[in-house]
Amino acid sequence: MYMAMRAMGLVDDGVAHAETPSLRPGSGNGSSVVILGAGLAGLSAAWELKKAGYAVTVLEARDRVGGRNWTVRRGSKIAHTDKPEQTCTFEDGQYFNAGPARIPSHHQATLGYCQELGVEMEVLVNHSDSALIQADGFNGGKPMQMRQAIHNVRGHVASLLAKGVRNGGVDTALTAEDQARLVENLIGWGGLDADLAFRHSESSGLLVEPGAGDVVGKPRDAMVLASLLHPMAWGAPTFHDIIDMQATMLQPVGGMDRIPMAFAGKLGRAITLNAQVTGLKRKGAGVEVAWMDRAGATHATTADHCICTIPFPVLAGIENDFSSNRQAVIKNAVYGDSTKIAFQSPRFWEARDQIYGGLSFTDRDTLMTWYPSGRFLHPTGVLVAGYSFAGPATRLGSLPLAEGQAYARETVERLHPGQSGKLTDGVTVHWGKVPFNLGIAGEVAQEDPAGYTLMNDPDGPYLFAGEHLSHVGAWQQGAIVSGWRAVNAIAARRASQSLAQPA
Amino acid sequence: MYMAMRAMGLVDDGVAHAETPSLRPGSGNGSSVVILGAGLAGLSAAWELKKAGYAVTVLEARDRVGGRNWTVRRGSKIAHTDKPEQTCTFEDGQYFNAGPARIPSHHQATLGYCQELGVEMEVLVNHSDSALIQADGFNGGKPMQMRQAIHNVRGHVASLLAKGVRNGGVDTALTAEDQARLVENLIGWGGLDADLAFRHSESSGLLVEPGAGDVVGKPRDAMVLASLLHPMAWGAPTFHDIIDMQATMLQPVGGMDRIPMAFAGKLGRAITLNAQVTGLKRKGAGVEVAWMDRAGATHATTADHCICTIPFPVLAGIENDFSSNRQAVIKNAVYGDSTKIAFQSPRFWEARDQIYGGLSFTDRDTLMTWYPSGRFLHPTGVLVAGYSFAGPATRLGSLPLAEGQAYARETVERLHPGQSGKLTDGVTVHWGKVPFNLGIAGEVAQEDPAGYTLMNDPDGPYLFAGEHLSHVGAWQQGAIVSGWRAVNAIAARRASQSLAQPA
Repeated sequence: MYMAMRAMGLVDDGVAHAETPSLRPGSGNGSSVVILGAGLAGLSAAWELKKAGYAVTVLEARDRVGGRNWTVRRGSKIAHTDKPEQTCTFEDGQYFNAGPARIPSHHQATLGYCQELGVEMEVLVNHSDSALIQADGFNGGKPMQMRQAIHNVRGHVASLLAKGVRNGGVDTALTAEDQARLVENLIGWGGLDADLAFRHSESSGLLVEPGAGDVVGKPRDAMVLASLLHPMAWGAPTFHDIIDMQATMLQPVGGMDRIPMAFAGKLGRAITLNAQVTGLKRKGAGVEVAWMDRAGATHATTADHCICTIPFPVLAGIENDFSSNRQAVIKNAVYGDSTKIAFQSPRFWEARDQIYGGLSFTDRDTLMTWYPSGRFLHPTGVLVAGYSFAGPATRLGSLPLAEGQAYARETVERLHPGQSGKLTDGVTVHWGKVPFNLGIAGEVAQEDPAGYTLMNDPDGPYLFAGEHLSHVGAWQQGAIVSGWRAVNAIAARRASQSLAQPA
Repeated sequence: MYMAMRAMGLVDDGVAHAETPSLRPGSGNGSSVVILGAGLAGLSAAWELKKAGYAVTVLEARDRVGGRNWTVRRGSKIAHTDKPEQTCTFEDGQYFNAGPARIPSHHQATLGYCQELGVEMEVLVNHSDSALIQADGFNGGKPMQMRQAIHNVRGHVASLLAKGVRNGGVDTALTAEDQARLVENLIGWGGLDADLAFRHSESSGLLVEPGAGDVVGKPRDAMVLASLLHPMAWGAPTFHDIIDMQATMLQPVGGMDRIPMAFAGKLGRAITLNAQVTGLKRKGAGVEVAWMDRAGATHATTADHCICTIPFPVLAGIENDFSSNRQAVIKNAVYGDSTKIAFQSPRFWEARDQIYGGLSFTDRDTLMTWYPSGRFLHPTGVLVAGYSFAGPATRLGSLPLAEGQAYARETVERLHPGQSGKLTDGVTVHWGKVPFNLGIAGEVAQEDPAGYTLMNDPDGPYLFAGEHLSHVGAWQQGAIVSGWRAVNAIAARRASQSLAQPA
């Protein structure tokens, strides 16, 4: 029996793990699961369990599915615990993804569902060589194109190393022949002249655009190395070299929420919206979940198993009978923060500045300015003027709305002088103060490794899931694989319960 | 009068040049222009002249507009001078761009028309970090992901230079403080450990994908520097750093030929298809163009001015009364070559290999293998198995169709072992042997600078235009700005003719 279960992928030396669930259709018949939260963890778990025959109920506190996967468009209401409600006033068809906004090529759990559910995809531009970096202590405060920083850094590094190797000042541990090959490669890679100097580089940008007739193109001259030592010149242009940020990145056409909406289409009435969980308790071998509807009426849902995807800062405020050590982990959990401030605007960044998608960086609290990846050449678009993390996000998000949006406008003004007046319809989302989230990216694995392990183990009928219980924190992929892990744990629990019963 | 003309942009010290034409509406009334060739040079010139009131006739030898801008889809007939005709058998909705397939962000002449004409655009993926490089003498012949080559090269370069600087073996001409900043930047940029060693890099790829619970990600170990010295490891991954290849690149949704089709929609009956030019001669101050229709009937079109965009290898075979020194330039012109071999296929490169658009490179005559940038996650797509230039393109294109396509399959097999059997519906386009082109990218500026200057000057009523008369060779941008130059020259010619006439 054990071997059969193992072959079925239900157990693996007793430890449920994060493999793609492949539960037999019908294997869940007669068993019920209540799932708390219709974010990506809850939705993917619900869908896998439903396919296997489980009776699934998803309770979602909001009036929409998706959780942090949230596309803000005309009419969206944006609530914070500390600010007045905003209503988005963009033109129809304009939007921005307030939560996750990118899918990396290697996040195959996420992309697999996009394929399975028929979500139409397009490229998400995470890097444009025409995008800008700007910092007070760099380039006289003037914005600089990515390409100029990237290729000046590369050119100077190549030149210094090639000269050092040729002069014998660098210990390469290579044969003389291989050293010569290294220098040869550095010449091409860095755009060096034959004497190993870096003097100019077309890759760093054109001073004169080539044309017809006698209009010959002219590359930018090299910058002086000493002027390139600001960390912004080395760090910002390599943001898209982070493994999760590398090309090609994708997004659903029409908004990231196409993914939860596609799950919802499959799950239908298994999802109850406006169901705010107020209490959790064990009942027999299962659970009873108390919840309140929008009108304030109370309800109770019982099930054999419970997957709880509620973010810990929210869960800490819900009455429960989890083990006391788990309650402590939940109470002490550290969560990240993020703020996005977006505006509708004429697309001054396109024809004028040749930026079609991608991110500009400043050293201000707005951190990143993100240009839209779709609807190129249309008259208007939504500019995410500030996309910020951690301390800067908390500072920026804690400002009164008008003040935060004025700050974000000033960032755009520094990047695109004279243009910020075109920004309209400002919207702020500060995740640390968004009800039912109160943060992003639980840092449980990093900050409390023992607690992380504990929360990944079933607590009787309770399974915990979400990006915060994965090593892919903040990503939809992490939520999904954590959801899968819970699904596998339920299948294992059900199998062991069946074994324990008299035949 | 001269100053007024100059202010109107009609003359600039007597030299027509490649500025955006801004001819006054009605300024061309009563004057006629015959344009030879409905490629991008001819179409953009025709559109600008039409807007100014000129009577425009575009004669196009083929049964379609666009010239080298050619999207091959189901039913497309592919003719070569040396091979049997092919008919494309892709599924409906599948296509590839046989000619230009990318628009760089800085090609604002091209993008400006896309905007003006309402051509819907999407991202053209020119680089994927998951794409592959493969060469017999590199990595044991096994394909390697771009990201592994890119970040091992960067890591080793950073490590060698940082150690060299710290040890005083490299003359940086920096202060001690700046040297320390340089080393600090190199640590982050190259992914170095604190001791300046490059040992591993998540950016170079993941050995283990992180998951839920206890599934911790693991980066690839560093490669040995000596194994990284093949030029493929340094060159291919920096292809997208060439100024014309940098992100973001765009393409029209549905095929590059949406651009000429949009021009054609505006020009309407000004374009005559199936009109093969057979002779050109001066008539009074204007020209008479003899041409033959599909049925073999001959026609003559007269006009005050003529813009000839016919590629020189084709033009050399057409009777004309150009100046003899121009005839010599045309006869001796050197043109480039290019071959594309495409197949329809299930998208094995996507979920399996995590490649969504972008280019893989081999050291074979196919050179580049190009994955589709649209319709991600759909069951099938069109893979450009080989996209080759110059000598390799001529060798590849000169093979019999079946042989060339078998060679391209073998390239795909080396990049994606076990997958090449899935390729169907092969199509070959070898531009050197395509009638009415006989090559790509006239290399007149490079190979015959005096001839280039001469051809850019009007020859009485004849103006010559096309990418071959620009410094943006092979690009649509070059064709357009050359077309603009001809338009400006016609406006100047007309103005000087008006001046010469009695008031």
